[in-house]
Amino acid sequence: MSSIIFLASGRVLAVNMADFAQYTHQREELIRSDRALRADHSTEASPAEIKADQYIRKLRASENITIWGAEHEGERELDYAGVAHVFPGMEFLTGKNIIMKTRLFNVLSKMPKGGLLHAHLDATVDAQTVLRLALQQPALHVRTSEALTPLNIQILPQFQALTEEQKTHSVVALTDTGYQPNTWLALQVARDGFLGGPTAFDAWAIGAMTINPSEAYQTHNTVDKLHRFGKSSPARSLCLRQGLIRFAPLWEQYIYEFLRSSVEDGISYVEVRINFFPKFMFGEDGQENVPHNVWVQIFDRTVARFRQGREEEFSGARIIYSTLRFITPEELEWYCDDCIALKQQFPHLIAGFDLVGAENVLKPLIYYADTLLRFRQRQKQLGLDIPLILHAGETLSDGGEADTNLYDAILLGTLRIGHGFSLVKHPKLMEICREKNILVETCPISNEILRLTSSMLMHPLPIMMNHGLAVALCSDDPAVFGNMGLSFDFYQVLVASEVTGLIALRELARDSVKYSTLEPSPKEAAVVLWEKQWAKFIDWIGTLLEV
Amino acid sequence: MSSIIFLASGRVLAVNMADFAQYTHQREELIRSDRALRADHSTEASPAEIKADQYIRKLRASENITIWGAEHEGERELDYAGVAHVFPGMEFLTGKNIIMKTRLFNVLSKMPKGGLLHAHLDATVDAQTVLRLALQQPALHVRTSEALTPLNIQILPQFQALTEEQKTHSVVALTDTGYQPNTWLALQVARDGFLGGPTAFDAWAIGAMTINPSEAYQTHNTVDKLHRFGKSSPARSLCLRQGLIRFAPLWEQYIYEFLRSSVEDGISYVEVRINFFPKFMFGEDGQENVPHNVWVQIFDRTVARFRQGREEEFSGARIIYSTLRFITPEELEWYCDDCIALKQQFPHLIAGFDLVGAENVLKPLIYYADTLLRFRQRQKQLGLDIPLILHAGETLSDGGEADTNLYDAILLGTLRIGHGFSLVKHPKLMEICREKNILVETCPISNEILRLTSSMLMHPLPIMMNHGLAVALCSDDPAVFGNMGLSFDFYQVLVASEVTGLIALRELARDSVKYSTLEPSPKEAAVVLWEKQWAKFIDWIGTLLEV
Repeated sequence: MSSIIFLASGRVLAVNMADFAQYTHQREELIRSDRALRADHSTEASPAEIKADQYIRKLRASENITIWGAEHEGERELDYAGVAHVFPGMEFLTGKNIIMKTRLFNVLSKMPKGGLLHAHLDATVDAQTVLRLALQQPALHVRTSEALTPLNIQILPQFQALTEEQKTHSVVALTDTGYQPNTWLALQVARDGFLGGPTAFDAWAIGAMTINPSEAYQTHNTVDKLHRFGKSSPARSLCLRQGLIRFAPLWEQYIYEFLRSSVEDGISYVEVRINFFPKFMFGEDGQENVPHNVWVQIFDRTVARFRQGREEEFSGARIIYSTLRFITPEELEWYCDDCIALKQQFPHLIAGFDLVGAENVLKPLIYYADTLLRFRQRQKQLGLDIPLILHAGETLSDGGEADTNLYDAILLGTLRIGHGFSLVKHPKLMEICREKNILVETCPISNEILRLTSSMLMHPLPIMMNHGLAVALCSDDPAVFGNMGLSFDFYQVLVASEVTGLIALRELARDSVKYSTLEPSPKEAAVVLWEKQWAKFIDWIGTLLEV
Repeated sequence: MSSIIFLASGRVLAVNMADFAQYTHQREELIRSDRALRADHSTEASPAEIKADQYIRKLRASENITIWGAEHEGERELDYAGVAHVFPGMEFLTGKNIIMKTRLFNVLSKMPKGGLLHAHLDATVDAQTVLRLALQQPALHVRTSEALTPLNIQILPQFQALTEEQKTHSVVALTDTGYQPNTWLALQVARDGFLGGPTAFDAWAIGAMTINPSEAYQTHNTVDKLHRFGKSSPARSLCLRQGLIRFAPLWEQYIYEFLRSSVEDGISYVEVRINFFPKFMFGEDGQENVPHNVWVQIFDRTVARFRQGREEEFSGARIIYSTLRFITPEELEWYCDDCIALKQQFPHLIAGFDLVGAENVLKPLIYYADTLLRFRQRQKQLGLDIPLILHAGETLSDGGEADTNLYDAILLGTLRIGHGFSLVKHPKLMEICREKNILVETCPISNEILRLTSSMLMHPLPIMMNHGLAVALCSDDPAVFGNMGLSFDFYQVLVASEVTGLIALRELARDSVKYSTLEPSPKEAAVVLWEKQWAKFIDWIGTLLEV
């Protein structure tokens, strides 16, 4: 079958329609087979889900023009270069205000997210709340290395709980020229006396605990420089925050807040990494003597208290025991023993083990491989199972130590991979992940702020998804980065792709429950809980369509 | 076998040495199988090559510290943010001066690069040389839309050859307040009268023809904005340059210069894209009447002249016929016919066919698919072979038109893929490329300057190499970007990876000859020529080791 088409020029175009029809058919087949490994490819979608997906895609396309295509005069001041480079999937710290204006974000904030599988507890409650909670604790104090002036306001605070004996009862403000360097002030006193008042104090203290767009995108702008020199690098922000959080009376409220804000964002389950590197927490009396088993006790009772009355929206919380990737293998032995002891006491809570910290600058996994192998052997002897859930490949390096951590993580039998940013370079490892069902805990916004990728458009997530890897979206250090909950991460992922739609997001959310460490029966219950939430969400989108 | 180790703490560590030996063995095996698809994996290396590779790796490691680890006060002014973020693989436009200081770059500049398979002829001779050649041509003129002042110096020149009748013989300088907008001045006259003299004129004219680091990395900083608004975007720079180049008397010298500078950098063969969109070039008399077949005649005789006496270092040059991706399919018919006519007249020169221009903003390949299918059918009927060698996937889009161009390029039977930046997202397409030996023409520095990647560290090249794709490094628009020759691209690739060494570079270079469009016998000769050059290069590195 062929047609003759007369063109404006008078020339005759013989279009072989049969050939072209065959071509488009082949093209569809090729696209299908190219996407065959994706989680959203072979799965079913109900008519209501298909409609909801179409709604989401239309909304995305229209807001790409109305919101992301518009000039954002108001945002110009937010853009470090003085020019508004706004686009979907742009740098989160400068684009956040625009994201929050979108209807799409509003819709996603109501989506049931499933499990949060990768977050560091110390960085999960926003700085404002932490400060509010801290101000209620008379034991908590603050000091600086110099009196603060407008010129040295970048000096960071140090927070700590003090004993009665350690308290100085000083009232000379941090901003007073008479302030004696490193004199502890009660938090409330420091805030009231601060030049500019409580508002100025809060801005200074919160600024110290969160990452700064100009540092991230301008002054440092590379992952290594952020980790090494960043005043508000994750490690430094976390250290600061720990001065307030590692205080037992506050810690309970802190955990409650974490759970509350997570559930509010549609998260129904969490597996949170707790940093057990410090052996003790401060108690109400300011003594640093609260041991790990009390931390877990507090966690246990807080989760139980929080879950009361929320059984329909919250499946629970578990702990990934973590220590830091700069200790010696000998020191690691202690933590392994400690973790085993906690697992024996709290078998329902200790879900896994990890070594955390910036991979590019700290020790590689191979340094700990022997110890970790013996840790696993010992568990077998004791009839325990504390899977390794290791950070690996959070790096731009190609073949360097942080990249080769992926080999060790997999050989050591990691249950999931934390970050796995460089995994896409490794065809054999991707094959193993598919075969052994090793899920990748991807942290899109964290990766972008830490400059592994300049925007979501360059993030390797689509490569992972198209290669059939199981993935869960995670927030990593949300209170430091400002991506509280998971809605921001889901938003950034959705707008950076034209392939990904609501069905892909559904699979990401479902996998975050399916790949949790829960035992079969509670896992089944958690999946059912999420599925009910999902059905409600789809119904709700349906009501939007009726309007 | 197990050993007891007494630790400093007094604790006893039972290291199962047999287990750990087994672990490290498994680890080596895993790394090997993960890299099994790489071109440098299963190939042989002579003892001299192994030594040379070790030398290169040592040099890279040492210069990472001595050069890239040092503070570069002198370069601070080059860095748009006022802070020297220097690191290996950093932004090329700001790092170029540092790269040129390295011994590694010096060594690579002597490496035989093989074929240059992806470059646009209009952007291959540096602006300074173009200007020097142009100043010898009295027919060439320049004008601006306004008189130039220090405040509007960003106004771009327009260049053109004029007929005797068109010449105005004006001598009022472009920088004179009395300059009448759009009055043509002879190039030499414009230069002599320019405020600040010839140096200022040259800086202005060359600046207009090359991309500007502050525009690339600050003002625009996204691929679409650079293409749309960049004053020195590739398209705009090319347009400007064409005003000088598309002039037959200059063109011959231009081609010669292109070949000379390529061979000087160790390139032994070229397949260059020529933009045949304009149907005529200007002749010596300033008439725009020199047709395509004369262009190719000039190319033919220039290559022949250049090759005389260079048979041991240069295998020749061929043309990839290109037109622009904004024409209608009907217009494309004309170019296909034109290309066939040229192929019939110059069968040894016309090597392929492409449609060029920014994929994100111009027409997708599917728009031309039917016409291109018929173009291939017509060739068959005529007993010709003009393979399609299509740009595809030069984009950050995931599933958008520019990304899906990859499906069409492959279905249309493309011989190689120009850029293929987004190919790594497509498992099935990568499989087809491996099976059908479709090489990817990767342009690392071009991709980085056009902000597809923020630095070489995020470039998908290692993903391609590890997945077993054949790749050739290419310079794209070197005279616009400043990456003349191929040494800069090889440098950036080498320093951004710890896996890639000299053997990988050797395979990249060899593949650039093996995947050329040469017929079997001349190809064999071109490979032999390159191999001789390579052996000499390895010998030369050997002499460095003896010292």
